[in-house]
Amino acid sequence: MNNTAPLPKPPPVMIEEIGSFHVGGRMCKLERLPLRERVSTAGGPVHHIDPNGEIMAGQMYVQYTRLAVPKALGPLLMWHGGGMTGAAWETTPDGRPGWQMFFLRAGFDTYVSDAVERGRASFAPCPQIYPEPPYFRTAKELWEDTFRFGPSGSWHPDPALRRIYPGLRFPIVAFEAFLAGSVPRWGCNDALTQAAYDALLRRLNPGVIILTHSQGGNFGLTAALNAPHRVRAVISLEPSGAPAPAHADAGLLRDIPHLFVWGDNWRDNAFWVRSRPACERWRDALAAAGCDVTCIDLPGRGIHGNSHALMADDNSDDTAALVLDWMAARGLVRH
Amino acid sequence: MNNTAPLPKPPPVMIEEIGSFHVGGRMCKLERLPLRERVSTAGGPVHHIDPNGEIMAGQMYVQYTRLAVPKALGPLLMWHGGGMTGAAWETTPDGRPGWQMFFLRAGFDTYVSDAVERGRASFAPCPQIYPEPPYFRTAKELWEDTFRFGPSGSWHPDPALRRIYPGLRFPIVAFEAFLAGSVPRWGCNDALTQAAYDALLRRLNPGVIILTHSQGGNFGLTAALNAPHRVRAVISLEPSGAPAPAHADAGLLRDIPHLFVWGDNWRDNAFWVRSRPACERWRDALAAAGCDVTCIDLPGRGIHGNSHALMADDNSDDTAALVLDWMAARGLVRH
Repeated sequence: MNNTAPLPKPPPVMIEEIGSFHVGGRMCKLERLPLRERVSTAGGPVHHIDPNGEIMAGQMYVQYTRLAVPKALGPLLMWHGGGMTGAAWETTPDGRPGWQMFFLRAGFDTYVSDAVERGRASFAPCPQIYPEPPYFRTAKELWEDTFRFGPSGSWHPDPALRRIYPGLRFPIVAFEAFLAGSVPRWGCNDALTQAAYDALLRRLNPGVIILTHSQGGNFGLTAALNAPHRVRAVISLEPSGAPAPAHADAGLLRDIPHLFVWGDNWRDNAFWVRSRPACERWRDALAAAGCDVTCIDLPGRGIHGNSHALMADDNSDDTAALVLDWMAARGLVRH
Repeated sequence: MNNTAPLPKPPPVMIEEIGSFHVGGRMCKLERLPLRERVSTAGGPVHHIDPNGEIMAGQMYVQYTRLAVPKALGPLLMWHGGGMTGAAWETTPDGRPGWQMFFLRAGFDTYVSDAVERGRASFAPCPQIYPEPPYFRTAKELWEDTFRFGPSGSWHPDPALRRIYPGLRFPIVAFEAFLAGSVPRWGCNDALTQAAYDALLRRLNPGVIILTHSQGGNFGLTAALNAPHRVRAVISLEPSGAPAPAHADAGLLRDIPHLFVWGDNWRDNAFWVRSRPACERWRDALAAAGCDVTCIDLPGRGIHGNSHALMADDNSDDTAALVLDWMAARGLVRH
């Protein structure tokens, strides 16, 4: 065998349609703002702009890719994390096919969203509609806090002086490419976002499978709780929050299998030490209610070094395969 | 023949890969901002946030869909207009397949971008990086000025009291769905945006075909001028601006065919009466330089009622077919 031969191309994917829609949103009125002027194109004329009037706010963007012959029992809804967009499911930062392509090849129609306030969903003016200004994700926050590439104090503007966790699986040469996918986030839009996700479930046929990452986790777990008859399964990659058993009835989800997947290096990370217990409480409540709950703790299986960006790490396809096997074992997709 | 029978499904499209990347952008540093606190998920703990540090700004998002067997000589780069994102090329607001699907079926790889400052490209903080705040598109501006659904004074918050141009081809029942696709725009990012488009052309193999709408027009015409050896053709749907013949050498584009397409009802519209002459001057300069220039004036061909949203109007497939025929006649795609 010639080790330098290129890998054979995988077979093409037969697509019925690619498209998109917005869901949710309502007309809002802006008033008493001063008139402005705008040059709309380089060298163009000055246009007088009246910023007052009706605008749309609160909508969410959903892009679907429908297969000619799906093999799964329902579409896979892919809900990104905080400060990210649906692009997180596409190509990995180092250029490998992402989870969207993986699950299309596995036979799932995919519905990838940009949640309220970001990406193609748009955002609304502050302070007129959103009460506070956005947060722009710093490289340091991404590196040390949220995504756990290295411990506290390990970020440095000079790439040569940055430190990472031993055996980190995130492809660190592609850090800038990953950072380029960050978008601003607000702290005031949880209710609007949940409403838009709930509206998405009402718009689609019952039987969807929800796959979430990070901030998307709480929205996905709650959306299933709000419409259990519409959801076949919920898969949460490192959720940053979950419903509280004291305020939500896990018994409503008794017939909906749940999967949680966790990476490495969270025990010395203040953000995750504070965030993860709520997810464990909900997992335990689901299990106590008789729900089919699985927790894949990657380090516990001897898979070390995964960051919070499981779908971008260098073993992203292996982790996707674990998720696919879990679904296949529950009859959610034909092999 | 049974007139109520559903249309047969078109054959599936054979896709090699769907993916995306960001191009352009640079690290910027935020300093001297006050510390903040954030609750990152409903019911979650309070996190202390330091907004100071390095962030990424100026990047552009590009989503590609590559066919297993393309029939075109180069990929089709689809560049949206102002206050829009790449979603403008997807499904029409009334739910029909959009131009992206049309040109995939016609054999083109598509590269759909979200330009700097919007959608999945993200935006940067104001006033630290962008000097001015964004413009949020009002329904009235969209209706009366930019998209020409009705004359001045025809917008009304009550749908029953809105007026449209006689024979308008935009599917007006889907107005709210179209408005939901609007995103904020800034007036300060022309140079950043042009730089990102130019960087995209350097990243792709030579031989691309550029298709633009509105604000994208000037960027596309200028990108061709900045890298004529990389571009096979430029198609401009209602460009809102163009290079000035006094400052740019149209002769550089002698070998690159150009197509301009215009809709209806622009003569009594102040925005377009002021914006369009610059495009006509550049078209004339191209023609004078010996360039193969075509102008499809739809009303001049007896096709009346098209709005500025040619790719959303109810004859969007017919207009796309005119563009495809123009490309086929120049050998840019095999029939």
